[in-house]
Amino acid sequence: MRTKEDEVLDMGANKGGGGGEEEVRMNNNNNNNNNNDDDDHQVEITVMEMMHKVELPQPKSTITKLKIRFKETFFPDDPFRNFSGQPFSSKLSLSAQFLFPILSWAPSYSFSLFKSDLISGLTIASLAIPQGISYAKLANLPPIVGLYSSFVPPLVYAVLGSSRDLAVGPVSIASLIMGSMLRQAVNPNTDPYLFLQLAFTSTLFAGIFQASLGIFRLGLIIDFLSKATLIGFMAGSAIIVSLQQLKSLLGIVHFTKQMGLVPVLASVFHTTNEWSWQTIVMGMSFLGILLLARHVSMKKPSLFWVSAGAPLASVIISTLLVFLFKAQNHGISIIGHLPHGLNPPSWDKLIFKSSYLSLVMKTGLITGIISLTEGVAVGRTFASLKDYKVDGNKEMMAIGLMNIVGCCTSCYVTTGAFSRSAVNHNAGCKTAMSNIVMALTVMVTLLFLMPLFVYTPNVVLGAIIVTAVIGLIDLPAAYHIWKMDKMDFLVLLAAFLGVVFISVQEGLAIAIGISIFRVLLQITRPKIVSLGNISGSDIYRNVQQYRDAKRVPGFLILAVEAPINFANCTYLHERIGRWIEDELDCGGKCASLQFVILDLSTVSAVDTSGISLLIDLKKILRKKDIELVLVNPVGEVMEKIKRADDALQFLGVDSLYLTIEEAVISLSSLIKEAS
Amino acid sequence: MRTKEDEVLDMGANKGGGGGEEEVRMNNNNNNNNNNDDDDHQVEITVMEMMHKVELPQPKSTITKLKIRFKETFFPDDPFRNFSGQPFSSKLSLSAQFLFPILSWAPSYSFSLFKSDLISGLTIASLAIPQGISYAKLANLPPIVGLYSSFVPPLVYAVLGSSRDLAVGPVSIASLIMGSMLRQAVNPNTDPYLFLQLAFTSTLFAGIFQASLGIFRLGLIIDFLSKATLIGFMAGSAIIVSLQQLKSLLGIVHFTKQMGLVPVLASVFHTTNEWSWQTIVMGMSFLGILLLARHVSMKKPSLFWVSAGAPLASVIISTLLVFLFKAQNHGISIIGHLPHGLNPPSWDKLIFKSSYLSLVMKTGLITGIISLTEGVAVGRTFASLKDYKVDGNKEMMAIGLMNIVGCCTSCYVTTGAFSRSAVNHNAGCKTAMSNIVMALTVMVTLLFLMPLFVYTPNVVLGAIIVTAVIGLIDLPAAYHIWKMDKMDFLVLLAAFLGVVFISVQEGLAIAIGISIFRVLLQITRPKIVSLGNISGSDIYRNVQQYRDAKRVPGFLILAVEAPINFANCTYLHERIGRWIEDELDCGGKCASLQFVILDLSTVSAVDTSGISLLIDLKKILRKKDIELVLVNPVGEVMEKIKRADDALQFLGVDSLYLTIEEAVISLSSLIKEAS
Repeated sequence: MRTKEDEVLDMGANKGGGGGEEEVRMNNNNNNNNNNDDDDHQVEITVMEMMHKVELPQPKSTITKLKIRFKETFFPDDPFRNFSGQPFSSKLSLSAQFLFPILSWAPSYSFSLFKSDLISGLTIASLAIPQGISYAKLANLPPIVGLYSSFVPPLVYAVLGSSRDLAVGPVSIASLIMGSMLRQAVNPNTDPYLFLQLAFTSTLFAGIFQASLGIFRLGLIIDFLSKATLIGFMAGSAIIVSLQQLKSLLGIVHFTKQMGLVPVLASVFHTTNEWSWQTIVMGMSFLGILLLARHVSMKKPSLFWVSAGAPLASVIISTLLVFLFKAQNHGISIIGHLPHGLNPPSWDKLIFKSSYLSLVMKTGLITGIISLTEGVAVGRTFASLKDYKVDGNKEMMAIGLMNIVGCCTSCYVTTGAFSRSAVNHNAGCKTAMSNIVMALTVMVTLLFLMPLFVYTPNVVLGAIIVTAVIGLIDLPAAYHIWKMDKMDFLVLLAAFLGVVFISVQEGLAIAIGISIFRVLLQITRPKIVSLGNISGSDIYRNVQQYRDAKRVPGFLILAVEAPINFANCTYLHERIGRWIEDELDCGGKCASLQFVILDLSTVSAVDTSGISLLIDLKKILRKKDIELVLVNPVGEVMEKIKRADDALQFLGVDSLYLTIEEAVISLSSLIKEAS
Repeated sequence: MRTKEDEVLDMGANKGGGGGEEEVRMNNNNNNNNNNDDDDHQVEITVMEMMHKVELPQPKSTITKLKIRFKETFFPDDPFRNFSGQPFSSKLSLSAQFLFPILSWAPSYSFSLFKSDLISGLTIASLAIPQGISYAKLANLPPIVGLYSSFVPPLVYAVLGSSRDLAVGPVSIASLIMGSMLRQAVNPNTDPYLFLQLAFTSTLFAGIFQASLGIFRLGLIIDFLSKATLIGFMAGSAIIVSLQQLKSLLGIVHFTKQMGLVPVLASVFHTTNEWSWQTIVMGMSFLGILLLARHVSMKKPSLFWVSAGAPLASVIISTLLVFLFKAQNHGISIIGHLPHGLNPPSWDKLIFKSSYLSLVMKTGLITGIISLTEGVAVGRTFASLKDYKVDGNKEMMAIGLMNIVGCCTSCYVTTGAFSRSAVNHNAGCKTAMSNIVMALTVMVTLLFLMPLFVYTPNVVLGAIIVTAVIGLIDLPAAYHIWKMDKMDFLVLLAAFLGVVFISVQEGLAIAIGISIFRVLLQITRPKIVSLGNISGSDIYRNVQQYRDAKRVPGFLILAVEAPINFANCTYLHERIGRWIEDELDCGGKCASLQFVILDLSTVSAVDTSGISLLIDLKKILRKKDIELVLVNPVGEVMEKIKRADDALQFLGVDSLYLTIEEAVISLSSLIKEAS
């Protein structure tokens, strides 16, 4: 007597030679059902006529496939698609607009737009000046470098950048990281000139790195910084930055060089004798005012100017207070004399000595990625609010070039700052012109107003930084993540704790590591679900999820929810083996397992290991007199199954089915006969 | 007039409060179709009655979910499932058998089994002795260490290991890597004792690392070594090992310390004056004989003993030749005096000085992983041939413990060797007893036969190594991979070229890096396909793959073939946006796009970023008066959508559909009305 197995094989073999799919299946079923009565036969034929075939995608050459995949990987936004079909002159002007986005808005720029940009530009300038000075101090750089950095880079960005809301300048986290990384090698107090050189050189590498990411369309690298990672990282950094401000807020002279929570607090409580009550009173007052202003603006966005103007107002008032009361003689430390004049050239300050090269490259890489992430995320956020588009890769080039130009004109690393961009947006900016207005205001300050900062107390700068970074701690978002996804929250927590207790860079590395490990884990340990038929329909769904879904006797229908590749084929082998064993082990009552249907709909790709797995499974199941049937492989998977089958004549391409329903109907007749 | 959008929102809102799903949908459709005639109405109701609801999986607590996921990740094989429901005494004996697999076969061991094991044990011993001596030389260790390593570890494995075919002892690649890594720090010729100490300490770390991988169920780490990586890596290593043998095969005295293809060939052709024709003649003759024997055994597996016996026969014949012709005086280098006696204890030789600690840990880690991969892969291969099971994690513990015991008894790193295990299998071994027989044979050799090796020429050992490693170059497998998957072949090539031109460790690292990057790329750039209806059915498939699949007017049906998470949500946002723009851009002829259906069947997981993406898409599409509809989310995805919807009332859980067909039928009525 012929076995079931032979028949299935036969079915495949016959079909290879024969004509249409339906026809041959019909013939086969005619043979199989010789003994049945005619009515049954009739039904079978009708069923078979409905059968569909799994098709191969249109054949493409390897080169074409690589080209398509390359395009999808690196040019998903297809930046040049407007170009096709245009005359040469249009192409030229489109290219110019592509390279210099300013050309797309400048020609149609109007006075009414300028009015809006003027107001927003002045508003962000009033924030940029005190923040620039403060952030430069955070990076252990001379305060004036923060102003230089708020002058040249915004001008460069206005020409090259495609965001209309981004307010460009130094930002807290990148400043913190640069300062702390460089301080590991050079003491900024004893060797400030070398420190400055290293900062400019790091900025150069950050710019080169950012621009190359954009040019080589590798923006996908920053995609690996998940929202959860960023929230945890930002909150941790905010705490680290705030802790550093205890130096100026308490008036401590001998402050620790370390950054972690534990050593900083230890140092603070070891130097209680240095605390200055005048400084503390002044710091707490201004901190209170600034936080109140922030609170008002958050409650009423139309009062954005309250928090936007508060830092500059605080600087002015505190400077006046110090000047009037000669408070510098009563324990309040002041900025002191600052040079004036525009950015001096600094390309001669770049150093490429091998002893510092790896340090500046590493610093450039990390500050580059972090500031890029902030800049691109800010740009995208406001673009989606105003419903225009920001091209991530072009933004990277713009930010990169801005830093390359910056490092030659005494600027350190800059990007689009979240808080200032939000103020810019609320103040009603229309184009990148607001950055130009801001830059010109900073220019005026640099040229004429620098002597006024002599008596500005450091404690106010500390209060400004604390107020700015407190906005980086996003508790509602963290709570939302906790509710949505516990694993994401774990990543957030790892980033936060890593930054607070270990170091900024390592915290970030840990969080990214966990994120990637988690993605890899999804691949290495894909879910396998058992499907059942939803009664009265041709739908098959997870029996765990749908109570109506009932297992089909004699069949085990499994769906693998991931690409099958080297990283999971061992696991899948073991796990599918256990499904089948469980099925066979259940005593006499369900020992009739005859077909294992593997639903490949959710398998988006296979590699050679995956194909080997399918072949192995087929072999092993044959030994147990069970037939493996594959259902609905997607194009790429189907191609590889076909290729493997051409070589081995084993998988049985011709016994593939398009839907589970069709497989079950077609194979049920074989079960009937066998029993 | 009410817009389509309102209606869809309404549908959601109503359903929240109402009773059964079908009922409410019916009511809604009654409202919508007020103007239609009664016949149409009737049809609508019938259609609506067929609708199915997307269900949530049974609610589980976070702890339960974590437990299930933990179990699936680390205990996919569920090693203790035989234990449940057994009395305590059975559990005890099962545990003993679990820990010491020897207990599961020793009690029923019979004389007939022993006969088979005796023959195979003696056969592999005849291979193990010359290979042990050769591989120890490859690792720059005294030859006797290779024999020590073929005595203790096989005994340990016989007690702990679960494979019946594994032949345990030193292997070529691990020897090569250990030798080359340690040689970077210590010269084995000038400081052999320190070198030996470092080798034993590295072995300790390899063992600890292997055992911990097993204990902590982290076997998944070796899953990241894909088949393609291994084939390329092994082929490259085979060439590097063979190149090293040119020293003994050509009789060169001053050989380079480097391993790469270029420096070794340069050194060989720089020292042509040192070449010894006597050595070359002897080497080529024995190499020819050994390769011929290998060829014979490959053609006829029943003649396995030809290649198994050839190395020992070559050693004996060449030793006799040297002894008779006093060839050592004619330019043929010999092993020289070897100590005899069993393994001396070596725990006192372990050194943990900080200056070498990172080196030995790194060496232990890399040799540990490599030898583990070989051992586990070999065990699995033969287990699947004989249809029994090998537990990967238990094997790791066994191999790890074997190395920990080994490093205290003058053994260096050992594992299951592929070539010897194949011989063991062909010789008909039945249990791990063949390892015990081999170990006893080696013991006899150590005790009584060592003086006989004095005159064994090094050139024969070189020929034995070359013959053994040539089997590692698997050209047919490489060709198969080339045909199946070009990207896999690229990985293979990277591993091969990396090993040959850079270094063994870096080649491996590059290949693993590419493999993982490729997996991540699949996640970062998932495929999005447009689905169409296969005419005359309710099946929806990729329009690129199925020529019969036709787009449904007014609908854009997209399927995302990957989990949606932080790494791809920016891409998906852009790419889906472009799909929709393409749809809207096509001129007047198809401007009626009203619904975007996102088929989530193939989305196996989402994280918080993924949920944000769905919400953003919904918002953006609303602005364009297009409605986003989700179809068939899997359990985990459904849970998160529900949770997000509870918080935001935005995604519209109630407008989810179970199948595309149902969504299209239900929404078509809205299109009809609008047009």
